[in-house]
Amino acid sequence: MSSKKRILTGDRPTGKLHLGHYVGSLANRVALQETYECFFIIADLHVLTTKPSHEDIAAIPQNIRDLVLDHLAVGIDPNKVTFYVQSAVKEIYQINLIFEMMVSVPRLSRLPSIKEMARNAHIDEEQLPFGLLGYPVLQAGDILMPRAHLVPVGKDNEAHVEITREIARRFNGLYGEVFPEPDVLVPDVGTLPGTDGQGKMSKSANNAIFLSDDAKTVEQKVRGMYTDPNRIRADIPGKVEGNPVFAYHDAFNPNLEEVNDLKDRYRLGKVGDVEVKRKLAAALNAFLDPIRERRAHYEANPQIVDEIIAVGNARTRSVAAETVAMMEAAMGMTYFR
Amino acid sequence: MSSKKRILTGDRPTGKLHLGHYVGSLANRVALQETYECFFIIADLHVLTTKPSHEDIAAIPQNIRDLVLDHLAVGIDPNKVTFYVQSAVKEIYQINLIFEMMVSVPRLSRLPSIKEMARNAHIDEEQLPFGLLGYPVLQAGDILMPRAHLVPVGKDNEAHVEITREIARRFNGLYGEVFPEPDVLVPDVGTLPGTDGQGKMSKSANNAIFLSDDAKTVEQKVRGMYTDPNRIRADIPGKVEGNPVFAYHDAFNPNLEEVNDLKDRYRLGKVGDVEVKRKLAAALNAFLDPIRERRAHYEANPQIVDEIIAVGNARTRSVAAETVAMMEAAMGMTYFR
Repeated sequence: MSSKKRILTGDRPTGKLHLGHYVGSLANRVALQETYECFFIIADLHVLTTKPSHEDIAAIPQNIRDLVLDHLAVGIDPNKVTFYVQSAVKEIYQINLIFEMMVSVPRLSRLPSIKEMARNAHIDEEQLPFGLLGYPVLQAGDILMPRAHLVPVGKDNEAHVEITREIARRFNGLYGEVFPEPDVLVPDVGTLPGTDGQGKMSKSANNAIFLSDDAKTVEQKVRGMYTDPNRIRADIPGKVEGNPVFAYHDAFNPNLEEVNDLKDRYRLGKVGDVEVKRKLAAALNAFLDPIRERRAHYEANPQIVDEIIAVGNARTRSVAAETVAMMEAAMGMTYFR
Repeated sequence: MSSKKRILTGDRPTGKLHLGHYVGSLANRVALQETYECFFIIADLHVLTTKPSHEDIAAIPQNIRDLVLDHLAVGIDPNKVTFYVQSAVKEIYQINLIFEMMVSVPRLSRLPSIKEMARNAHIDEEQLPFGLLGYPVLQAGDILMPRAHLVPVGKDNEAHVEITREIARRFNGLYGEVFPEPDVLVPDVGTLPGTDGQGKMSKSANNAIFLSDDAKTVEQKVRGMYTDPNRIRADIPGKVEGNPVFAYHDAFNPNLEEVNDLKDRYRLGKVGDVEVKRKLAAALNAFLDPIRERRAHYEANPQIVDEIIAVGNARTRSVAAETVAMMEAAMGMTYFR
């Protein structure tokens, strides 16, 4: 047992990760792994709340591998982080049902996030799946199953961690102290705009540069990026603020001198978009090159990724079995096992 | 594998059974065991939906033993019926979560039975546990877990079986045929009034004669029974209809001649309550004597009851594991196990 504090974080396996994920969470995860004992959940059961079809499920295994691959590629160390597949740790089902007794329907119904998820999935209110309303309960199970102390979340997920804290309190109050009340860790990260400058980067908006894009694709996507729309010629002074090209320079170009020089000349109308974008593509590719190298290593040895997941599943199962045993003992549900 | 059709029935382990249970379900179960392959669930997890306290749980193990004992005592044959404890067959948790994706919140919210359960448990609507709203989903899991064809239910539970059918259809529609759509079997049974003549017999109304009551207790309770309140003397003609004393005679006294004679004389004001009740107590004790004999045998050998439960749990687990494997194969959730 490590004496480090435990973190639970993770993603749904819905596809490959992009630069927006890097800025929003991956970079932070790479840092956190040095200080904390990290459990990384690949939340496939949460996929079923909005996408239960046979085709949705058929995509999951490859998405799981891609998700782990993306994390390994950016520098997550499998010796420091325990990856696991949610559905492979069956204890979660039991923890979930017990927790369903510890939160009220009106409390869950008031969460705007559930309605938003339903809207995004084009689910009518009349058809709202019971399991989707229970999303935050299952999430509480995910967090409390390894008895995590900290949960790095975006602002939109803070309310779910609050429900987790309430469930932990309710359980501890009914049966005795089993769970820590986890704290949120709202990391100081930004969001990255999409290449089209319309909202944040996302796969569904088709405005993403993926961590797995090759150099040519990156160059192409950068060439097509949205910039200052008023700047129809290179000698017209342009706006740097809110310009995605410069947001990317700020996020990924370590050559501050070059970035500042480009910004100055852009404001004065003394640099063409072509040069700004060429230097951005070069910076992005320089950033992505070591990531590609690590990816190539794992892609050449796919059994390593599967092994990392298998080891993580087994490790998480033993932690989960501990937790369930603690719960059952606290509750007095130790009869007829 | 038996080629008989499967039945799932059962009770929550909330206490000893009485004559009302015998008339309403036990007698029917004794008959059904001859024709069907019967799974008998002892639904302890359902107790948690309204009674999650430490004390509530502490009462469960003895209630489980009493429930099985009552069934064995009335003639349920453990070689024909598989008893199992719900929480001991962990597959139910997984089946439950999957089924939670297959039914909508509004569908469950419209069920009057949920609100009634909440009212009976003095739970305010604002505090309605998410798990209580999910009661019919867990029940669907109970029924479909052994892939039951038939569910003997009272009128108040027909709506829950309808939800089970909908879930089975939805699952089969999404992933392929796994579950039979179970039919309800509404048995032709009556309800027994309480000894106070106020509503039906129930433990909480304190108007019950228990299967485990001894002969003296039965005599006492029968002596105190409510009869025709207008009949203040034995020579006043009395009403037989709606009179609990005669309802019990009809249900438990096999001597029709005696019963008809008592009714005739009662209507004419030619028999005292004392005689009617004395003959009822004798009939009830004659009915209960073989039940007491079987109970005494099992009470003297409590390890037999525990063994029956352990064998039933193991048998049900293997059926449940089959079902989960069928579900996972149908869904395509066979990755990273």
